Amino acid sequence: MGSRLAVLGAGSWGSALANVLTENGHQVTIWTRDQEQQNEINTRHTNTHYLPEFKFTDEIAATTDLKKAVKDVEAIVVVIPTSGIRELARRLDTILDRKVTIIHASKGLERKTHKRISTILDEELSCEYVTGIVALSGPSHAEEVINRDLTTITAASVHLESAQYVQKLFINDYFRVYTNTDIIGVEIGAALKNIIAIGAGIIAGLGYGDNAKAGLVTRGLAEISRLGVEMGADPLTFMGLSGVGDLIVTCTSPHSRNWRAGYQLGKGEAIQSVLDNMGMVVEGVSTTQAAFELAKEHAIEMPITEAIYDVLYKDAEVKYVILNLMKREGKAE
Amino acid sequence: MGSRLAVLGAGSWGSALANVLTENGHQVTIWTRDQEQQNEINTRHTNTHYLPEFKFTDEIAATTDLKKAVKDVEAIVVVIPTSGIRELARRLDTILDRKVTIIHASKGLERKTHKRISTILDEELSCEYVTGIVALSGPSHAEEVINRDLTTITAASVHLESAQYVQKLFINDYFRVYTNTDIIGVEIGAALKNIIAIGAGIIAGLGYGDNAKAGLVTRGLAEISRLGVEMGADPLTFMGLSGVGDLIVTCTSPHSRNWRAGYQLGKGEAIQSVLDNMGMVVEGVSTTQAAFELAKEHAIEMPITEAIYDVLYKDAEVKYVILNLMKREGKAE
Repeated sequence: MGSRLAVLGAGSWGSALANVLTENGHQVTIWTRDQEQQNEINTRHTNTHYLPEFKFTDEIAATTDLKKAVKDVEAIVVVIPTSGIRELARRLDTILDRKVTIIHASKGLERKTHKRISTILDEELSCEYVTGIVALSGPSHAEEVINRDLTTITAASVHLESAQYVQKLFINDYFRVYTNTDIIGVEIGAALKNIIAIGAGIIAGLGYGDNAKAGLVTRGLAEISRLGVEMGADPLTFMGLSGVGDLIVTCTSPHSRNWRAGYQLGKGEAIQSVLDNMGMVVEGVSTTQAAFELAKEHAIEMPITEAIYDVLYKDAEVKYVILNLMKREGKAE
Repeated sequence: MGSRLAVLGAGSWGSALANVLTENGHQVTIWTRDQEQQNEINTRHTNTHYLPEFKFTDEIAATTDLKKAVKDVEAIVVVIPTSGIRELARRLDTILDRKVTIIHASKGLERKTHKRISTILDEELSCEYVTGIVALSGPSHAEEVINRDLTTITAASVHLESAQYVQKLFINDYFRVYTNTDIIGVEIGAALKNIIAIGAGIIAGLGYGDNAKAGLVTRGLAEISRLGVEMGADPLTFMGLSGVGDLIVTCTSPHSRNWRAGYQLGKGEAIQSVLDNMGMVVEGVSTTQAAFELAKEHAIEMPITEAIYDVLYKDAEVKYVILNLMKREGKAE
């Protein structure tokens, strides 16, 4: 017998995760702010804006009523843009009346505070309502997960038992879940890889090849690790699924919207028009600002983040910034 | 004024490196065993079997005479398959009459001894002829280097001065060389990434997507590091250009012949027919055997290497082996 669960957020990733949980025998309610989307999921069982080809099983219900969505659930999966997490957590805190496990699968840092998502959740939710907070992260395009393509992913929590509980909820034949207790490293890797993905997209848009991309991603991993370690992460986490793994999938695959935004920037499009045309939140854009400020604060060298920041926020010329970045004086690795 | 240099080996990578050196103002002689290839390079300045679209500058000379090739050179770049390195080094030892820097850009482990290439060179060349031994390695498709696409690469040697000398020889606007003193880590990463590339090709050939590929590469990096650290490497090297960087480029790009071999295996072709049709040495095949035996010897867990070994040498069914590998019991990362 499965568990009663809520997935908050009906984007492509929220939908894919809800589908995995339903396939594993759980009763899942999806919460969305969008009345039309709710109706579409409940009547036609589709979510065409995010996953054009996909059909949910009939058992999935959607609602715009947050209270109804989380009623009597054992665990809540939060999959909304980072900018909305704090407000949603505040609302949950007024609604919940029993302890639940809070799982999040969002990837970003809060803009002004630079805080990780689990920190925001921890700040806003009273401990009497939280069994544990778990981050679910790794190389996982939603488009492949709904096709039951083999996927490996990390469930991270300071409480190993919470991570193991989430592992049990999600694991199946094609969705392979590993546990990790370094939630700092997992969340930093998840957030910052989007900056490098924008960079990899720019490199491709400018016409550079695979050698340049691999060089950028490698140096990106180094600067993510530098900041992560400064913030208390285990350096080994960045060699894992939520570090290297997610970087590879995000920087080398056409599914990534951060990569696509970078690609269009590399092709010479202006940032505002890129974002206007995307139709979805590009998390890397605000994460770049947060990481840039964090790097300054902690005096960590993050040349790629700085370069992308200059492109996104200082109107710097893409080609000049990237050439400058890649041709820095040859030195020790 | 440039240096007099020899490049031993006229495959695609030897040709691309010779071209970088010539563009940097050095006098380069390429040595090849193949009389026809020598004539083609000297008269038509092309090397069509390996680089169909490419034309050398007129200054490059090719010869089949090893003695002539290395006469009065300051440094020798060895770029031949691993299986031929020991014999070539023996011949060089009888020919050389002054100290030179030995650079190698080959990627493999010796089949029976499991030795790294710099170890073989060190064993066979008398110290009176060697200033230093340097491994040149990183994410670098020859096809992009001849197009002057941005490339970042590592020059590794236990003697920093030798690495810096090689950095100076090769560095230019598009070929960015970093130094590293962990030659063990650089050579282990260079050799073993070809095993993972075969695996990534198999995954693609079987029809799996980017999530599965990223998972495999991440776990591949972990097992390469485990063996490398056991053999004396610095774990951080595997996060660098010759580790993560080279894995990315080899596992996500159609240029890699190891990936292509794996892809055909995944499509159901027999190993012998794959190798027969390749027309070039697939280093990963013999490296798999060497790494498999090394792992046994040192009692290191290398599940991907074992799986590829079973496919290549034990006639195991590709689909079964890979599924088995990817679906191992969910546990800690």
